[in-house]
Amino acid sequence: MIFASDNWAGVHPAVSAALSETAGGFDSAYGSGAWDSRVSALFNLIFERDVAVFFVATGTAANALALASAARPGGVIFSSTEAHILTDEAGGPEFMSGGNRVRGVSGPPGKINPVALKAAMAHFDGGPVHYGQPAAVSITQATEMGTVYSRDEIAALADIAHARSLPLHMDGARFANGLAALGCTPAEMTWKSGVDMLSFGGTKNGCWCAEAVLFFDPAKAKEFPFMRMRAGQLFSKSRFVGAQFEAYLTDNLWLNSARHANAMARQLADALTASGSARLPWRPDANEVFPIMSTATAKRLKNAGAVFYEWDLPEGFDGELDEDERMHRFVTSFATTEADIARVETALRG
Amino acid sequence: MIFASDNWAGVHPAVSAALSETAGGFDSAYGSGAWDSRVSALFNLIFERDVAVFFVATGTAANALALASAARPGGVIFSSTEAHILTDEAGGPEFMSGGNRVRGVSGPPGKINPVALKAAMAHFDGGPVHYGQPAAVSITQATEMGTVYSRDEIAALADIAHARSLPLHMDGARFANGLAALGCTPAEMTWKSGVDMLSFGGTKNGCWCAEAVLFFDPAKAKEFPFMRMRAGQLFSKSRFVGAQFEAYLTDNLWLNSARHANAMARQLADALTASGSARLPWRPDANEVFPIMSTATAKRLKNAGAVFYEWDLPEGFDGELDEDERMHRFVTSFATTEADIARVETALRG
Amino acid sequence: MIFASDNWAGVHPAVSAALSETAGGFDSAYGSGAWDSRVSALFNLIFERDVAVFFVATGTAANALALASAARPGGVIFSSTEAHILTDEAGGPEFMSGGNRVRGVSGPPGKINPVALKAAMAHFDGGPVHYGQPAAVSITQATEMGTVYSRDEIAALADIAHARSLPLHMDGARFANGLAALGCTPAEMTWKSGVDMLSFGGTKNGCWCAEAVLFFDPAKAKEFPFMRMRAGQLFSKSRFVGAQFEAYLTDNLWLNSARHANAMARQLADALTASGSARLPWRPDANEVFPIMSTATAKRLKNAGAVFYEWDLPEGFDGELDEDERMHRFVTSFATTEADIARVETALRG
Amino acid sequence: MIFASDNWAGVHPAVSAALSETAGGFDSAYGSGAWDSRVSALFNLIFERDVAVFFVATGTAANALALASAARPGGVIFSSTEAHILTDEAGGPEFMSGGNRVRGVSGPPGKINPVALKAAMAHFDGGPVHYGQPAAVSITQATEMGTVYSRDEIAALADIAHARSLPLHMDGARFANGLAALGCTPAEMTWKSGVDMLSFGGTKNGCWCAEAVLFFDPAKAKEFPFMRMRAGQLFSKSRFVGAQFEAYLTDNLWLNSARHANAMARQLADALTASGSARLPWRPDANEVFPIMSTATAKRLKNAGAVFYEWDLPEGFDGELDEDERMHRFVTSFATTEADIARVETALRG
Repeated sequence: MIFASDNWAGVHPAVSAALSETAGGFDSAYGSGAWDSRVSALFNLIFERDVAVFFVATGTAANALALASAARPGGVIFSSTEAHILTDEAGGPEFMSGGNRVRGVSGPPGKINPVALKAAMAHFDGGPVHYGQPAAVSITQATEMGTVYSRDEIAALADIAHARSLPLHMDGARFANGLAALGCTPAEMTWKSGVDMLSFGGTKNGCWCAEAVLFFDPAKAKEFPFMRMRAGQLFSKSRFVGAQFEAYLTDNLWLNSARHANAMARQLADALTASGSARLPWRPDANEVFPIMSTATAKRLKNAGAVFYEWDLPEGFDGELDEDERMHRFVTSFATTEADIARVETALRG
Repeated sequence: MIFASDNWAGVHPAVSAALSETAGGFDSAYGSGAWDSRVSALFNLIFERDVAVFFVATGTAANALALASAARPGGVIFSSTEAHILTDEAGGPEFMSGGNRVRGVSGPPGKINPVALKAAMAHFDGGPVHYGQPAAVSITQATEMGTVYSRDEIAALADIAHARSLPLHMDGARFANGLAALGCTPAEMTWKSGVDMLSFGGTKNGCWCAEAVLFFDPAKAKEFPFMRMRAGQLFSKSRFVGAQFEAYLTDNLWLNSARHANAMARQLADALTASGSARLPWRPDANEVFPIMSTATAKRLKNAGAVFYEWDLPEGFDGELDEDERMHRFVTSFATTEADIARVETALRG
Repeated sequence: MIFASDNWAGVHPAVSAALSETAGGFDSAYGSGAWDSRVSALFNLIFERDVAVFFVATGTAANALALASAARPGGVIFSSTEAHILTDEAGGPEFMSGGNRVRGVSGPPGKINPVALKAAMAHFDGGPVHYGQPAAVSITQATEMGTVYSRDEIAALADIAHARSLPLHMDGARFANGLAALGCTPAEMTWKSGVDMLSFGGTKNGCWCAEAVLFFDPAKAKEFPFMRMRAGQLFSKSRFVGAQFEAYLTDNLWLNSARHANAMARQLADALTASGSARLPWRPDANEVFPIMSTATAKRLKNAGAVFYEWDLPEGFDGELDEDERMHRFVTSFATTEADIARVETALRG
Repeated sequence: MIFASDNWAGVHPAVSAALSETAGGFDSAYGSGAWDSRVSALFNLIFERDVAVFFVATGTAANALALASAARPGGVIFSSTEAHILTDEAGGPEFMSGGNRVRGVSGPPGKINPVALKAAMAHFDGGPVHYGQPAAVSITQATEMGTVYSRDEIAALADIAHARSLPLHMDGARFANGLAALGCTPAEMTWKSGVDMLSFGGTKNGCWCAEAVLFFDPAKAKEFPFMRMRAGQLFSKSRFVGAQFEAYLTDNLWLNSARHANAMARQLADALTASGSARLPWRPDANEVFPIMSTATAKRLKNAGAVFYEWDLPEGFDGELDEDERMHRFVTSFATTEADIARVETALRG
């Protein structure tokens, strides 16, 4: 009953097998080998166009480097107030970009409200040089709050960004969960909706370390190989990331795993609601559930072996909590089982 | 007959097996799990003292972050003119350290001459603020030129660094090869000889991505967790690096692999010298051989299937090359076989 | 009737005369001359202890470098939501500090509320490395909203900062105006109340470019000379800053100028209030007045020759504005005259 | 007899008078005032085209920011081994550019040899990403060694830079001295010879702080206002820099001052050579003289009141020095008098 995070899970057997099969032999290092070109071609296929793909070590690296590629002097990056880049990367985007700032914009849980984005950007429209200047807009899909942007919502934010000649970045640490929720194609959820750069994450969904930065316009990526290198993010034995991605993207493993995780989240949400001892301020679209429970309920679940975290209310949350109530986060993954959910149900029943 | 680099090799079967065995189950993320503590303890054992160990993604990251932890405003880092940090990291140490400079100091192939180091540092002794100030000394063991510092040589450089209150950093991308060459203990080659920080590399010697920064005085590492995090170098599923290191450091796998690679280099050196069509400006101590050969000889080897690179002469090299001669680099690894060497011999014979 | 900013004013005649008198002769460059030591001594005298003084070119440089000296990996600097460092320095502190973040904390106009500060800092207390860590607290005196912290208010914030081993920085771009308002000594308003670093500004109060960073504990300033040099902030003919400061700090010129500016602000505030066509959401303590007026009133004043800016409401402002109303900022200086105020009165009367 | 540096001199009376005359009244701050546009127009006139002009506080700031505007990830800036940016700015260009590296290229005293530049750049031509990539070429005019590039020499280096799409930057801390030596127009010495960016210095030649960055193609300067702002290099009372430049550029003050300084250097060179107790390894083209003298001779001059520095031999200097001999640097300025030279002559005679 591990709901602490999807990165507490291990590696999907298919990915593990691919790693083992890649172990022997020799291959050209630093991303110039046969594996790398094969996996690049796979990304082109999946995204229905030529994309520039760069493997990196972590999701934070993917975000920080993608955003650094859009950095400007005095630059301001707009994100949701709950965005990982703003709250959970220890200033990685600021560090990698030479001090660009990340500015939270309010909205529904995990999302940017387009009206609020326009208002926030208007401040940087013709004012003095002291204010700095906009550099990029970043959204997360699925969001950190378990919600998922619709394609129209993405397109609306893209339009606002593009009207100011800014790129739209998507943090896809849980890309597959978002995609499974929307039921559209990868192309539709990204460049067809106006996304320019994507942090494509495989780690949380069954790889052990498979993260990549994608540029939908490869011409924008010309300096990126040097940015990745000087950041110590170019693997020498790059083929092992390639092998993970190949297994991940083959036979729908990624989507099937994400669908499973999302389904488990829905079951968990239902169980929590049905129990009467927890309530959900919003329904999960993907694989994260945020129940509000009393500390007694939380303790009962912990005693039964469930692992999960207490969580800060999202900025601007307008519900009321009793003094004894707290919000909590439960994350499901490819490794969550129906038995896990059943045990939660039992524990809730007391 | 792949001699292009030791990172063209794959993964040692024992390391691969360990990765597979770690695949299942759940563990706490971001380096706080059971694996991490176990591997930490293993490092303490091997180095005969409490060390602070931080896994990172690449050797460049290890070097750049270790040196960044010693950065000072206007700082100058002294290294060999052939050091990887100076020539092959695309400015990684400069980037990570907020613009500290790496300054090459002359010496024997791959090494710093202590007299030259003292002279270079003397320039920064009481001069105007315009010069900047020394920040660190960095050596590579085994060096980029296939040579190995003796313990006395390390201690002599450490003394010079410490006299100026500077840390001595060791780039140990080929740590095991150096250790196998010296035949001493890890403690003797590092902190007992005055080394303060170590980039400990396992990737080139049979892991797929297992690199770490070690601080021999853990009190100096207090800010390092944040440095690693903001650089996007903290793996979420950190246990997979731990699993590699555990296999690597168990049953002498690391030393046996390095001894094998070094032995292959010696055999290759002998074969080259004996052939009469190549000469070695210096004997290899570790697993890299730098023969000077005619382009015709090089072509013959390539036609026979050998993969290796032409290489720049080290700065200050005082030998003479015929117009048709070039220096080349051959790197051996755990995966090099005696059959590979035999085929080189055959090809040399024409 | 220039109320646009106190930096639209020129140079006080006494400062100008001092510059002229310094013009001839030779002196050691880069802050090592006779002038520099004399002015250093003057700062020691005024602050009643040995302080480390560093001249820089601008207030933004003073703030950014002072804060950079306190930077930590993943560091967070806490300031008022209206702080110049957060809103008007184009990311200077972020840039100079290698990506430390500035985080606005709510409070009365221009100030940090100590309860809000404690709450904001509590988030960084024992959480995961992902959050980063606190680096400094920065307050502005007089604030950007024309208010002035009492000594007790400063001490309360200092206690919170020091409890976390963080330095308290004071942005003193309008230091003299704050001091004149409080009527205490420079020592009392700074280190005796817990301030560790001060951006000491003379430019807005009658110099042409005289800004300095002061460390009340000179031992904390050991690396600062290199930080200033590499930022291109070390003047070669440093004595000309020294000459300005010497004139500024002699015969109470600085305090008399500030008292005059503050008095003009009070007269202006009275005139605005008395007119019935403007209201003040808070009384000015120093030399900035923020009337809420209709656009018609503002236009009348502009037609009469008054220069001033429309201004954003401070974050969290809880008053109500009519649709036609706007907040505006009027800044007085040593060069503002009673005649200027009288002309505003006349214009307000219509 | 101050020959320590041209920045030990004070301010030319005409510049001082201009500062005094600017003291009163009000003007728009931050470079948007009437003075600023007037001085901009003056620069256009002098350089015979529209240039983008940005005042900054110091020569180091001008160099570091100009080069930062050309920075690339993994970037390498090529300069003379004696360049101020390499040896005397405490890593300012590295800091401001996010870690671009400055690489010394050999040549005649203070200059880059075009053949050596081509060779140095060839290393970065198609190699692995590990090497980084070229970012800019920077020359100093007049050089740090008192020599002056001919227009053909500048054009040859510009051609090499432009062939790689790199900008040519000129550090003109002693621009007027170079110009006076060549006897050509400012346009001829800069953009007509291929210079793209210029650090234009007035401080060493009679201003107190008047430095500017010039872009000969203003379209390349679009991001520069934000770079200057976040570096704390935008003066609020910018008109005082404007006033200095206006006086400096009026009635040939700048060229007359430089001609005088250069003439004094030639007289000093003649006096040193004629004395028989000093020799010049190269003739001064501008206002710096580098005599080789015995320590006894140097002592005699110091006892007579001359102030000057012992100086490191330029890298690659091929002359021989006796054990007792040292190189020294003498700098003349607008404030050097014939009487100063006469006193040197007398002292040399013993």
